[in-house]
Amino acid sequence: MQKRAIATRQAVLVAAAEAFNRMGYVNAGLQEIISESGVTKGSLYFHFSSKDQLARAVIDEGCARLDAACSQQFDSRTPALEALIGISYVMIDPSNNDNLMLAAFRLLNEMGDFRGTGHVVFDQWTSTYQALAARAVEEGDFRADTNPDEAGRLLLEMTFGTRLLAVATDTLRELPERMTTAWKVFLPGLVDDAKVDYFSQFAARRLSSYLVPS
Amino acid sequence: MQKRAIATRQAVLVAAAEAFNRMGYVNAGLQEIISESGVTKGSLYFHFSSKDQLARAVIDEGCARLDAACSQQFDSRTPALEALIGISYVMIDPSNNDNLMLAAFRLLNEMGDFRGTGHVVFDQWTSTYQALAARAVEEGDFRADTNPDEAGRLLLEMTFGTRLLAVATDTLRELPERMTTAWKVFLPGLVDDAKVDYFSQFAARRLSSYLVPS
Repeated sequence: MQKRAIATRQAVLVAAAEAFNRMGYVNAGLQEIISESGVTKGSLYFHFSSKDQLARAVIDEGCARLDAACSQQFDSRTPALEALIGISYVMIDPSNNDNLMLAAFRLLNEMGDFRGTGHVVFDQWTSTYQALAARAVEEGDFRADTNPDEAGRLLLEMTFGTRLLAVATDTLRELPERMTTAWKVFLPGLVDDAKVDYFSQFAARRLSSYLVPS
Repeated sequence: MQKRAIATRQAVLVAAAEAFNRMGYVNAGLQEIISESGVTKGSLYFHFSSKDQLARAVIDEGCARLDAACSQQFDSRTPALEALIGISYVMIDPSNNDNLMLAAFRLLNEMGDFRGTGHVVFDQWTSTYQALAARAVEEGDFRADTNPDEAGRLLLEMTFGTRLLAVATDTLRELPERMTTAWKVFLPGLVDDAKVDYFSQFAARRLSSYLVPS
């Protein structure tokens, strides 16, 4: 794509994400997105043929940004359980004001099929969590009798359940504390007694950087 | 309302629930609902002035049925933790084929504001779970240091996270086993060591009645 075409496409995505995040899929209209993005109707339709297609592109871009933000939490030397704790906070960060990421979360639910333009997004997240859980078993942080597929999926379920309930009850600011509570309750079922304190404190320390000043 | 008007309203709700559950909010059209419900266009518009209003009435009716199904799991003599375990399976029952309940779950997400015609549905569920958690502390099943508001909310988050991920990855049939896994991991963080086995087994026994024959 030409540089200018790429810039136009990006401008449309950003304006669309803002509108979808504010109004939701049903209420955000293409006409409004056109007037707010400063692009012409022709330019928008050159890149996206429908609201559905545009929304799916927003999901793809939002998820790519979320993946990048999660990757910054760890490298190959980070113990996997510390990485799992780190990315759990990224997934629920209430100070996140990137409309592309926020719209992706909202659209995944509202479009009802949990896809961007391609695969089911949750399949990929599940695999990532399960791979990290398997490494946490190998590293001796999760107990040896932990089923990594079950544990990985459960942690993802917890993350999205926490997010869903906070969105529904308009309590997004409380998300980091709730994630810490969730870890406190989860850890005794997944790690040896001797390590519960360390990882509970690790989660509580991570919490501090996500607290929104009141 | 006259008997016949009530019957018409109910016929519209049932047809609408089937359509919303099958196609989702965006794709289900009023015209289709009219032809499938066997009521006239005039009758539908007499009771519901818009798709939005009709969908909210489906949420109300679906949630009322879900509440009734949950209430059957316990009475005032049932220990609260046993009641919490019982209703967690009702919430994720894969053999549930009541379109009104299923459409309510779907519409709550897709409409984005988590309301029926009135209050935020999740506020009421949160209160119920928190009240049961408080009683579980009083009854000595949850540890004395358990914060019932946190524990109640966490159990609801787990229930909806489990459901959300299963819908997203088209694995609804696996929900009861996943709920049992969740209880197994949760219980050591919430109940005394001496009781973990009893309640894990209680959850596993409840599981058996929700398994879908394969």
